[in-house]
Amino acid sequence: MGKVICAGLGPGDPDLMSVRSHRLISGARHIAYFRKAGRQGQARAIVEGMLAEGVTEHAMEYPVTTEIHFSDPEYNRVLGEFYDRWADTLAEIAQDEDVVVLCEGDPFLYGSYMHLYTRLQGRAAQEIVPGITGMSGCWTASGQPITWGDDVLTVAMATLSEDELAKRAAETDALVVMKIGRNLPKLRRALERAGRAEDAWLVERGTMPGQTVQKLSEIDGEVPYFSIVLVHGQGRRP
Amino acid sequence: MGKVICAGLGPGDPDLMSVRSHRLISGARHIAYFRKAGRQGQARAIVEGMLAEGVTEHAMEYPVTTEIHFSDPEYNRVLGEFYDRWADTLAEIAQDEDVVVLCEGDPFLYGSYMHLYTRLQGRAAQEIVPGITGMSGCWTASGQPITWGDDVLTVAMATLSEDELAKRAAETDALVVMKIGRNLPKLRRALERAGRAEDAWLVERGTMPGQTVQKLSEIDGEVPYFSIVLVHGQGRRP
Repeated sequence: MGKVICAGLGPGDPDLMSVRSHRLISGARHIAYFRKAGRQGQARAIVEGMLAEGVTEHAMEYPVTTEIHFSDPEYNRVLGEFYDRWADTLAEIAQDEDVVVLCEGDPFLYGSYMHLYTRLQGRAAQEIVPGITGMSGCWTASGQPITWGDDVLTVAMATLSEDELAKRAAETDALVVMKIGRNLPKLRRALERAGRAEDAWLVERGTMPGQTVQKLSEIDGEVPYFSIVLVHGQGRRP
Repeated sequence: MGKVICAGLGPGDPDLMSVRSHRLISGARHIAYFRKAGRQGQARAIVEGMLAEGVTEHAMEYPVTTEIHFSDPEYNRVLGEFYDRWADTLAEIAQDEDVVVLCEGDPFLYGSYMHLYTRLQGRAAQEIVPGITGMSGCWTASGQPITWGDDVLTVAMATLSEDELAKRAAETDALVVMKIGRNLPKLRRALERAGRAEDAWLVERGTMPGQTVQKLSEIDGEVPYFSIVLVHGQGRRP
């Protein structure tokens, strides 16, 4: 009997994955990872050079990423079937052997694995190895602590409405916003309304080659979906 | 010329520190760590058995922890002097050699190192190695993802007022509350007012020996300051 192990990879630099994830991944006979069809995928890129000889790779290619809006029932139907099918496959492998599923960042913080996790309950033994979050990688890259003393930290997605983002930005000490991409103009307006735009930073590729840290006010043009916006807290400090 | 390296230790299980922190700590000639006077200290306990022979250890013992309230100016004065003195010592070591400062969790998320970090700016080269946060260790231990889809996550300290805690609990999807200890009765009342008490979990010693995960409603008695309360988000899931 094997199990399905979800190994958090951390923010991108392979040196920042946990000792446990590193050992599990480099010893694995089966690995699986999500990716957009036709791409190598970021999770697979992080473990390049780390895999054992003869490992079997299972690329779980999303049937859809941004082609259908997530509010469309078709989006849920297509993705639901995709997760069902891969849960079946992983459960079958785990009858005989361990399979290690790669997960960028920390699996239980907005990770895709959770959709397999719920489907595998009662069908296969599972283990989750936490990871350093992408946002930790970004605030470390920014060179400033994200929170001090009793600061409240809010983590929100830029997919929320402008009103919701403005309210969240106004009412928190420290702010992390993920899923930026095409939501940048809306997020910028929300931060301006909240009086936080001048203190906001945008981090791209945190901890990875090509990492950039810029003031949001100096960004002109498009940014990746997986970039992160930070507003640092300014709380108590002896 | 050396530098001051702050190595995030992660949530407590030594196997969950990053490959980089592990390498830096096991190769260090100087390590430093915070602890309460007279205790071994949690940071030092995590690296037990990992240190190189002949390492010099610098125990940075807090002059005060909870004996004076943090709102008392004396608290800031005493702690400020303590950080000043250790910044001097670390800067002096770093003139010749690297010194690795151990930091539980992730250094830039409510870590104590930040008080040295600001004081060492311009005086010594510094490197921060992020870590898996204590809260990631706790939500992984809880066996449930903390956030789904576009959930908003709020991280707050139980030292806030009951009104503030109740408002934060009512207005977020997912909630993490840290610094529990004697603040538990206040936090419990706040969660009840927000209608979130029945969904709250308390995690003690997440990822460490003696880890416990309990429904908050079933807790009777005192809990440690470093335990964590979680309310999981219930967002979109295909």
